[in-house]
Amino acid sequence: MSGIRKRILIVGGGAVGPKVASRARRLDPEADIKIVESGKYVSYGACGMPYYVSGDIKNADELVVRTPEYFKKLLDVDVLLETTATSVDRTARTVLCRDATGREFTLPYDALVLAAGAQPAVPPLEGRDLSGVFKLKDIPDMLAISDYVKKEEPRKAAIIGAGLIGLEMAEAFRAKGMGVTVVEMLNWPLPAMLDEEMASLVSRQLDEQGVRLVLSQMAKRFDGTQGGRVKRLVTDSEAIDCDLALVSIGVRPETSLAVQAGLEIGLTRAIAVNERLQTSDPAIYAGGDCVECRHLITGRPVFAPLGSTANKHGRVIGTNVAGGSDTFAGVCGTAIAKVFDVAVGRTGLTEVEARQSGFDVVWSIVSQTDAANYYPGAKRITLKLLADAKSGRVLGAQCVGRGEVAKRIDVVAAAISGRMDVKALADLDLAYAPPFSPAMDAVHHAANVVRNKMDGTARTVSPQELKKKMEGRSDVIVLDVRTDGEWKLSRIDHPSVMHVPIGKLAETDVGFCEGKEVVTQCLSSVRAYAAQKILEKKGCKDVKFLDGSLSAWPYGLKE
Amino acid sequence: MSGIRKRILIVGGGAVGPKVASRARRLDPEADIKIVESGKYVSYGACGMPYYVSGDIKNADELVVRTPEYFKKLLDVDVLLETTATSVDRTARTVLCRDATGREFTLPYDALVLAAGAQPAVPPLEGRDLSGVFKLKDIPDMLAISDYVKKEEPRKAAIIGAGLIGLEMAEAFRAKGMGVTVVEMLNWPLPAMLDEEMASLVSRQLDEQGVRLVLSQMAKRFDGTQGGRVKRLVTDSEAIDCDLALVSIGVRPETSLAVQAGLEIGLTRAIAVNERLQTSDPAIYAGGDCVECRHLITGRPVFAPLGSTANKHGRVIGTNVAGGSDTFAGVCGTAIAKVFDVAVGRTGLTEVEARQSGFDVVWSIVSQTDAANYYPGAKRITLKLLADAKSGRVLGAQCVGRGEVAKRIDVVAAAISGRMDVKALADLDLAYAPPFSPAMDAVHHAANVVRNKMDGTARTVSPQELKKKMEGRSDVIVLDVRTDGEWKLSRIDHPSVMHVPIGKLAETDVGFCEGKEVVTQCLSSVRAYAAQKILEKKGCKDVKFLDGSLSAWPYGLKE
Repeated sequence: MSGIRKRILIVGGGAVGPKVASRARRLDPEADIKIVESGKYVSYGACGMPYYVSGDIKNADELVVRTPEYFKKLLDVDVLLETTATSVDRTARTVLCRDATGREFTLPYDALVLAAGAQPAVPPLEGRDLSGVFKLKDIPDMLAISDYVKKEEPRKAAIIGAGLIGLEMAEAFRAKGMGVTVVEMLNWPLPAMLDEEMASLVSRQLDEQGVRLVLSQMAKRFDGTQGGRVKRLVTDSEAIDCDLALVSIGVRPETSLAVQAGLEIGLTRAIAVNERLQTSDPAIYAGGDCVECRHLITGRPVFAPLGSTANKHGRVIGTNVAGGSDTFAGVCGTAIAKVFDVAVGRTGLTEVEARQSGFDVVWSIVSQTDAANYYPGAKRITLKLLADAKSGRVLGAQCVGRGEVAKRIDVVAAAISGRMDVKALADLDLAYAPPFSPAMDAVHHAANVVRNKMDGTARTVSPQELKKKMEGRSDVIVLDVRTDGEWKLSRIDHPSVMHVPIGKLAETDVGFCEGKEVVTQCLSSVRAYAAQKILEKKGCKDVKFLDGSLSAWPYGLKE
Repeated sequence: MSGIRKRILIVGGGAVGPKVASRARRLDPEADIKIVESGKYVSYGACGMPYYVSGDIKNADELVVRTPEYFKKLLDVDVLLETTATSVDRTARTVLCRDATGREFTLPYDALVLAAGAQPAVPPLEGRDLSGVFKLKDIPDMLAISDYVKKEEPRKAAIIGAGLIGLEMAEAFRAKGMGVTVVEMLNWPLPAMLDEEMASLVSRQLDEQGVRLVLSQMAKRFDGTQGGRVKRLVTDSEAIDCDLALVSIGVRPETSLAVQAGLEIGLTRAIAVNERLQTSDPAIYAGGDCVECRHLITGRPVFAPLGSTANKHGRVIGTNVAGGSDTFAGVCGTAIAKVFDVAVGRTGLTEVEARQSGFDVVWSIVSQTDAANYYPGAKRITLKLLADAKSGRVLGAQCVGRGEVAKRIDVVAAAISGRMDVKALADLDLAYAPPFSPAMDAVHHAANVVRNKMDGTARTVSPQELKKKMEGRSDVIVLDVRTDGEWKLSRIDHPSVMHVPIGKLAETDVGFCEGKEVVTQCLSSVRAYAAQKILEKKGCKDVKFLDGSLSAWPYGLKE
C-alpha cells in the first residue's frame, strides 16, 4: 500500500468511531478516514442524557462533544450523518450505504470498523406505540422525552426496569415533579449489579425519595386514552396509572451488519473479537457496545456495554487500523450510578456471580465514614468485599452510600487488575488525611475483616442471612451491645433481639446463650467483634457478629 | 508459657499502641496487655488538630477516639497515662517507668512494643521560648494554640515550613482572620511532596487565599516585645511582623528509648525493623512514626510518618506479639492534604526522587475535569504521571485541583503496589458515570500520553521546561491554537507566543517555524496535540506540545 492512502471506514459515530478516527489520524497522517453514522449526531455524551431530562444540563448542545466540521478541519476525517451501512461485501471490501435521501452507494475499505453500539431491548408489549411511551437510546429519544415533559406536563411516570438507566431516569422524573413507579421483574433493584443486601440499601433510598419500587412483577401491556396517549401500565399483578412510561430493561448489541457479513457472534450474542479487537475477518474490527469483552476474573466473554470501555476500544482499534499494534486487556464489570443522594458502585463479581463461576466466596460488609469520623461533613458508605476463600484473591466489591463511593470501587478495580489478594489490599498505601479518608479506610477495614474470617478469628453473618435466620428459627439470639442511649433511639424490632451494653457484658451471666446461635451487633461492628471475643472467653460456643451491624442493616429499624 | 499470661507492654498511646492492644486482645484473650503513655491522652486523632484550631471541629473531645476506661472495660487493657518509659533492660526484660508523681517502677515484658511516635523538629532559634511561638505535636499543643488565639487575638501569623502541617495551619489561621506568612527554606511549597511545576499550582492557590509565601529563606530568630511575646520573625532576608508563630519544619522519630536499649537505628535515623516489624531484638517490636519503612519502588528504607501507616503497623504487631505471623509490605510515599479549596496529593516518587533513584523518567501532565465535562459541578484536576522510560512501569503521580484528587492518587498507589505499567493503567476498568468521571479518566489519559511519548508519537514540554526555554532563548515559538475568543480572554504573555487558531492551521503558511523549536498549546492539550500532527504533516521538524496546556500552566496568564 506504499504511496496509496489506506482507507479506514468506520460504521458508527458514537464513542468508539470518533476515537478510532482521532487515534488513527495521529498515527497515519495520510489515511482516508470516514465515519458513517445513521443518526443525526456524532460523538455525543450518551451517558449524560438523564441529566438533560432532569434539567441539570440546560443545553442539549453540551452533550455533543464534536461536530462533523471539527472532524474535517482538525483531523481531515469525513463524517457522513444520517447514512446507514446496509451490507458488507468482504471479498470486494466494500460497504453498501444509504443516505437520508435514499441514495445508495458503496464505500471501499482496507480496514473496516464496526461500532454501531447497542439498541434498547424493547419487549413486544401491547401499547408500546402509544404516545408517552419512550425508550432512551440517543439524542432524538432524549429530546422527545424532554419535549413531551414540557408540553404534556405528565404527573405520573412508570418505568420498566430498575437498572442503571431506569433509576437515573426515576431521579430525572422526580426532579420534574412527577410521581414515579419503577417495575422490576427480578427480586431487587440493580439486579445485574448488586447482591440482595446491598440492593436493599438502594431500595431504602428510593423509598426515601418517594419512588415506588415494585419488585418481582412482569410488565404485560400499556393501556391508552382514546387520544392514543398512555394511561396505564399493566403488570402481572396490578395496574399502574401513568401518563409517561419508559422502557429500560437493558440493551442488545447492534450486530445486524456483522450477522449479514457472516462474522462470528459470541455466546453473549455480541460480536466476538480477539485481543486486538479484530472480528473473525482480520480486516474488520469491532468495538464498544456491539462486542463482547473478556472478564478479567473469569476469563469468560461478557457483554458489558459502557462508554469508558468504548473509549478504550477506540484507541486500541485506532492504533491497529493505522498499522500499529495494541490490545485490550478486558473488563472486570465495574459500574457506578448516582441514585438520588447515594452513589452505588460495584466492580468484579457479585456474590451471586462468584458462586455461579465456581468460587468458594468469603465476604465482609463494613460501614464507616468516607472521611475521618470527626471531620465535618464526613458521610457514611457501606462496602461489601468479596474474595476467594482459598487464596484470598479479591473477587469484587459493592459500595453504596452518601459518601465517596467511586474511589473505593476504583481502588478495588485496580486491585482486581493487579490480581491482588486481601492481604495486598489491606497493605495498600492509600492517601490519608482527615478530609479524605479515615486512617484505616473502608477498603483496608473490609480486607482485614475478610482476613479475620479466613483465619477463623472472626465469624460473621450477613444481614441477609440474619434476616433468614430470624424468620425461620427460634434458637438464634441477636445481641445488641450498644449503650442504653443508642438502644433507646433505634433497634432491630424482633423477639430474637436482646440488649446488653458491652460495658456490662463481662459481668453478665450469659447462660441464656447456651445451645443458641448468638449474633452480636452494634453500630459499625467494632464493638460487636469485641463482644464476640468476650462471649467466647466466657465459654459461648457459637458466636458470630453481624456484618456492618446496624449501619449496613437494610431492613429497617424500630425508632 | 502455657498457663502463664503473656505480658505485652506497649510504649506509646497514639495510633499504633491502641491498635496493637486491640488486635492482640482479639487473638489472645488471656494476655496481660499494658500501654504506657507519657501524655495525658490515649488514642487521639492527631491529624485532625488543624481542624480544631480552624474551628471546623468544635469540640476537642471529638479527636479523642478512646479513653482508658474503654480499654479497660472492653478490652481488659491497662492504660497508664502521664507515665514515661525511661529505660529498657533487655536481659531482665523489664522497662523502667516514671509516673506523674515521680515514682519509679519497673514493668516486665515478654513482648515490648515501641510506638512513641515522632517529635516536631524545632531548630535552636533564638526567641523560640517567647510567648506566641508554638509547635503542633499533640493535644496540649493544640489547646495551647487555640487558647492563645482566643485570648490574645493575634492578627499576624508567621509559619516556618511550607510542609503539610504548615499549610494546613495557614488555612486554620486564615479561618481565624489572621494575615499569614509562610517561610520555606526550599524553592517551592510542599518540597518533599511535589515537583516544582505542580507545587506552583499550590503557590497560586495560597496567593488566591491571601497567604504570603516566602521561598528560599532561612528563619534566623524571633524578636519579642518587652512583655515577652513574639513580635517578629527574622529570616536571612527580611523581618516579618507577627504576633503568633508556628514552627513546622517536619518531625523526627522518637528513638531515645531504642537508642538507650542499644537497638539498631536505620539510615534515616528512625528505628530499623524487619518485615514483621521486629527491631534488632526479636522480643522488641516497633511501629508508626518512630520506625523507617521499605519503599515499594526503590526497596530502600524511608522515613514516612503517617497515621495510616501507623494503623497498619499496629495490626501487624498486634498479630505477631499474640503469637501469630504477619508482615508489613512497605509504603509508596502516598500523601494528601487539603490546602484551602484545592486538594494536593501524591504517590510513588516525584520526578526529582525518581531521577535521584537512577530511573530514566518519562512523564505526562494532563488537566481535565473530575466528572464528565458537561456534568454540572465538574471541577478541574491536574495530574502528573511518572513512569520508567524503559519499561513503562508506573513510578508516581502528583495531583492538584479543586476536583476529586484523592481517587486518582489512590488508583495510582494501587497500580504501584501491583507493579503495573502505563499500559495496564490505561486499561483499568474504572467506574464511569457522568457524575463521577469522564469516560476517559485523567488517569487513563495521563497513562496514554506517557505511552504516546514512549513510542515517539507525542513529544511534549513541561511547563517548567517551557518557562526555562522562554527565559533563555529566542528560537522557541509557543503556538497558541485556541479560538480567537479564547485568545482574547487570556494568554501566556511573552514575545515567543504566537496565535493561529487550529481551524486555520492547515491553510496557514508555517514558514515562521523553520529552524525553530515549536511548542503548541491550547486549553487542555487535545488541540495542541492535533496541531503538532498538522505541523508535522506540513514539514515542521521540531514540534512538541505543552503538557497540560494552559490548564496546567502555573505561571500566570495575561487577561
